[in-house]
Amino acid sequence: MAAQIPTEKGVLGYFQKLSNWGRWGPDDELGTPNLITPEKTKRALATVQEGVSVSLAREIVWDGAADVPSPPVHFMLESGEGWASGDKVSSRPNAAAIDYIGMVFHGVAVTHVDSLAHFFWQGLTYNGKPAHLVSTSMGATVCSVTAARHGFISRGVLVDVPMIRGTDWVERGEGVMPEDILAAEERCGFKVEEGDILLVRTGQLRRRNVEGPVARTAGSTACQAACLPFFHERGVAVMGSDTGNDVSPAQYSQVPQPIHQVGITAMGLWILDNANLEDVSEACRQRNRWEFMVSIGPLPLHNTTGSPVNPIAVF
Amino acid sequence: MAAQIPTEKGVLGYFQKLSNWGRWGPDDELGTPNLITPEKTKRALATVQEGVSVSLAREIVWDGAADVPSPPVHFMLESGEGWASGDKVSSRPNAAAIDYIGMVFHGVAVTHVDSLAHFFWQGLTYNGKPAHLVSTSMGATVCSVTAARHGFISRGVLVDVPMIRGTDWVERGEGVMPEDILAAEERCGFKVEEGDILLVRTGQLRRRNVEGPVARTAGSTACQAACLPFFHERGVAVMGSDTGNDVSPAQYSQVPQPIHQVGITAMGLWILDNANLEDVSEACRQRNRWEFMVSIGPLPLHNTTGSPVNPIAVF
Amino acid sequence: MAAQIPTEKGVLGYFQKLSNWGRWGPDDELGTPNLITPEKTKRALATVQEGVSVSLAREIVWDGAADVPSPPVHFMLESGEGWASGDKVSSRPNAAAIDYIGMVFHGVAVTHVDSLAHFFWQGLTYNGKPAHLVSTSMGATVCSVTAARHGFISRGVLVDVPMIRGTDWVERGEGVMPEDILAAEERCGFKVEEGDILLVRTGQLRRRNVEGPVARTAGSTACQAACLPFFHERGVAVMGSDTGNDVSPAQYSQVPQPIHQVGITAMGLWILDNANLEDVSEACRQRNRWEFMVSIGPLPLHNTTGSPVNPIAVF
Amino acid sequence: MAAQIPTEKGVLGYFQKLSNWGRWGPDDELGTPNLITPEKTKRALATVQEGVSVSLAREIVWDGAADVPSPPVHFMLESGEGWASGDKVSSRPNAAAIDYIGMVFHGVAVTHVDSLAHFFWQGLTYNGKPAHLVSTSMGATVCSVTAARHGFISRGVLVDVPMIRGTDWVERGEGVMPEDILAAEERCGFKVEEGDILLVRTGQLRRRNVEGPVARTAGSTACQAACLPFFHERGVAVMGSDTGNDVSPAQYSQVPQPIHQVGITAMGLWILDNANLEDVSEACRQRNRWEFMVSIGPLPLHNTTGSPVNPIAVF
Repeated sequence: MAAQIPTEKGVLGYFQKLSNWGRWGPDDELGTPNLITPEKTKRALATVQEGVSVSLAREIVWDGAADVPSPPVHFMLESGEGWASGDKVSSRPNAAAIDYIGMVFHGVAVTHVDSLAHFFWQGLTYNGKPAHLVSTSMGATVCSVTAARHGFISRGVLVDVPMIRGTDWVERGEGVMPEDILAAEERCGFKVEEGDILLVRTGQLRRRNVEGPVARTAGSTACQAACLPFFHERGVAVMGSDTGNDVSPAQYSQVPQPIHQVGITAMGLWILDNANLEDVSEACRQRNRWEFMVSIGPLPLHNTTGSPVNPIAVF
Repeated sequence: MAAQIPTEKGVLGYFQKLSNWGRWGPDDELGTPNLITPEKTKRALATVQEGVSVSLAREIVWDGAADVPSPPVHFMLESGEGWASGDKVSSRPNAAAIDYIGMVFHGVAVTHVDSLAHFFWQGLTYNGKPAHLVSTSMGATVCSVTAARHGFISRGVLVDVPMIRGTDWVERGEGVMPEDILAAEERCGFKVEEGDILLVRTGQLRRRNVEGPVARTAGSTACQAACLPFFHERGVAVMGSDTGNDVSPAQYSQVPQPIHQVGITAMGLWILDNANLEDVSEACRQRNRWEFMVSIGPLPLHNTTGSPVNPIAVF
Repeated sequence: MAAQIPTEKGVLGYFQKLSNWGRWGPDDELGTPNLITPEKTKRALATVQEGVSVSLAREIVWDGAADVPSPPVHFMLESGEGWASGDKVSSRPNAAAIDYIGMVFHGVAVTHVDSLAHFFWQGLTYNGKPAHLVSTSMGATVCSVTAARHGFISRGVLVDVPMIRGTDWVERGEGVMPEDILAAEERCGFKVEEGDILLVRTGQLRRRNVEGPVARTAGSTACQAACLPFFHERGVAVMGSDTGNDVSPAQYSQVPQPIHQVGITAMGLWILDNANLEDVSEACRQRNRWEFMVSIGPLPLHNTTGSPVNPIAVF
Repeated sequence: MAAQIPTEKGVLGYFQKLSNWGRWGPDDELGTPNLITPEKTKRALATVQEGVSVSLAREIVWDGAADVPSPPVHFMLESGEGWASGDKVSSRPNAAAIDYIGMVFHGVAVTHVDSLAHFFWQGLTYNGKPAHLVSTSMGATVCSVTAARHGFISRGVLVDVPMIRGTDWVERGEGVMPEDILAAEERCGFKVEEGDILLVRTGQLRRRNVEGPVARTAGSTACQAACLPFFHERGVAVMGSDTGNDVSPAQYSQVPQPIHQVGITAMGLWILDNANLEDVSEACRQRNRWEFMVSIGPLPLHNTTGSPVNPIAVF
């Protein structure tokens, strides 16, 4: 993997070179998932052999951690307590339990997709929409996650980088290169194709499971900016990994988060952050098969820049 | 539809008669979705002909309404404003927008599934678990929605009651009867089978779209308690509708919410509340086909009694 | 009360004429409460004769209403249930109850003070601070409510307009005029002085108590813009009423909320919204005395544009 | 300070010995603040010499810390951004900023008072009220903080333990003893009297300011259980300190939090947690005077077990 990372100038050039602005019309707010055609969905279904489902989501938990300073919250408006004894004071007539859940799903705790309203570049997001249309008061009046309301059902392919590299995990601060993906294609017998949901396992979640969480300042691995032309060329519809999807510490001063900055604003690429690829990588290894169907149903949250999701892989 | 509704004594008898306690082992927390076997999932995929996806979820909106006294909330922790001008004071280094979402998903505003910790009967829930294990402090320490973490991918069938009855919608306070479902089977050429996701459209959401929301005290239609033996006999894995899934005003004093009370606690039935069945009913009519694949990925919310979902139907 | 309301041009002139910019230094973020000198506080204490306290706050309740579409929220993280029986599953070692409270205190439900970061005029707030320093990400980096961390303890005077006018309440859409205040001075034997906390009772809260809440579109009474020069001339430190403190429907197209717009941005006036003046008006009537000590302790909420408060009057 | 701490049996005896149940009637929900009579309030006002106010509250901040795993939250529903440029998309007609604040005020981050519904002993709280009346669904249907809606205005006295002991702060795990208070009376020339607001400075907040936060497992100082009979005998109305008000690690296995457990449930004592006594101790030292007026206005939060407060001392 001696491949060289692109220069900052090179990465800055991606904003033009990899742009999908106008490709699906001037009003398009969906971007690369346009590549998941009905025909593509049908082919994805055809990869299923057994009907076995595997979640790609991390459990949403309520405790803070070194990398989760503002954890999601869960409150019970009513619980199961007291119903049995009859000593019960409740506004509800029937014995039921009710929850409140709240979360900032962006960050590195919750498996989620980013809509195309999540990042901006030079005051604009995907398809030239002005950033201020994602307003404090009204939220994402353009490029909301509701653009994906009918979900993404496509073929998933897993690039298991530690397996390819023969390591436990990719180091924080180091990037996954297109060469890793090409090696996975070679080793695993698939080819990333138009409309695919590309899942890149770095092992960083496994490391967290083994070593415990570390502060975000400790850095992160992710796909290196060099992967962006590969995504574009192959027509990746959704890319996801078991990290926050940008190498840190940043490798570029002007484009510190190239996967998000170029991917979202120029390419209209939907990004799946913080997926749990542990179970699916085990499932792939068992079957010696690295392609499967994936179903993602983002919540249709009005004017919102993404959604927590539980993507389901089916083998 | 002259069928008679069961007596309260009859409904009380369902708790024993329709019980699935122990059926999938003494520790089972999943209930009827156990009937979605890999084989069933495969058969569900085989119903897909075109690869066209249709969401079964209502948009999650932030405004209160007559039937939504406590609406979900959406706050922007950072927006797109100010980045273009440079007059920007932010804790974030890059131009991005970040949201907080919060909600009580139970109720009649949000499309969601109930886990088996949502209701209790005589101090217990499904499989004899004591209600107090769903605690105020720790939430659903049993029967959490995480039991469904690998999702439900099965065959969906749509019973479009207004179409069957030749009306616009079922009246509030009136129930959908098993005879409606049998008539739909006859009319639409399917048969509800083991492991199915049974969707019952009452038209009540359409009525809300047309006439506007009304207070919950105005009542609701839903499947009548008489449907419970049908669900049990046919082996329905998940049942959903475009309502809160219990007739109101209540038809029984001791069992005011029989679908939830018997369905969840005795049968271990997963219920999909407040689905949007408008688009899918149109899609069915266009194709003259009332079966399709459905994929539901409940968020794996730790110790939570359900989850908002965006179920995706695929034709 | 045949007094005429000022023209829009007149009100627009207030931004200059009533300006306190620079009056307490170029960095001042406190505004008119600078007039509550220690000497003034001492004089306020000297008005106390009996030591009887009366709250000026409305109870903070959790239900929505016609005028409260987004009510405050209250969740119990732990309750008293289950401790007695011993059937208790808790993350807490001791029998205690714990609450979460959350609220948008601005609006017309919660008694609160506005800090000088709450409104803007022509891109600026009090003392010429640029509006964008009150940012989405970081909040009120200037003119936060923490400017008032040491509280306001001063003399309160109550102008009981319905008593003065001989009515039950001032009509929605109609304003309280300086002539009302002058008449109260005459009738009640006080004179509004520098550093005072001026409380204007319109009876609108009583009307809500009697007739029930109405939508905000039904309008509101409040001090008319004509009172602003009076506030300025007399040196009012804090002004409050039992309303949201601006007449609606708006009487001026360019300055629809003059009390807030001129008061906050030009004068640096602290406004107390939605006070409960029912008990205090009764207390005043009983004693035939309309002056008393008032103590307000705004919560020192970092970078926040106001605070819920419970002002205490002492007779 | 060689005083001995009481045995566990002794502390268990306090529940009877120090009980105020029935003292102010069988329905009383207020407890010891009944001792703040109008006469007492008047005497408190008479201690004021200069009219200088000092806050006793810590700033409410939004960042987590080692001792704040679940920090309060602050979201801007509207900010000052965008108004100046005119590129503004807002649901609000006027240039204003709006906040949401939310918090679990119990814990060690927020200065707050506990109502008498906050703790339970043997299934009961103050005045024999059953714990289950503080319910998950409805909150504190007894002994809510609204019992204190008219506020506490009384004499405050500061026991500055580090000054008395000649140290920087009391060590974590060690208690403040009645002998410390007696020494302060001697040294500072006051006597704790009926209806007083007793403030005990341990220096622990100063230590946090100097050394940074430590996890709650590191322990805490506070008044030792031995102080409870002193509080009772002297008729303390409200006791507060710059800590969470119980020594930890716990010194008793059955009564791990005696100040809260005995104080609240048996005595009906209102406790002020996490006060900021740094400024007031400086103010006292400057004046060589350790008594002053204190005004506390708990928010009248419906059915809530306490309230964040900003107590104001006046010299």
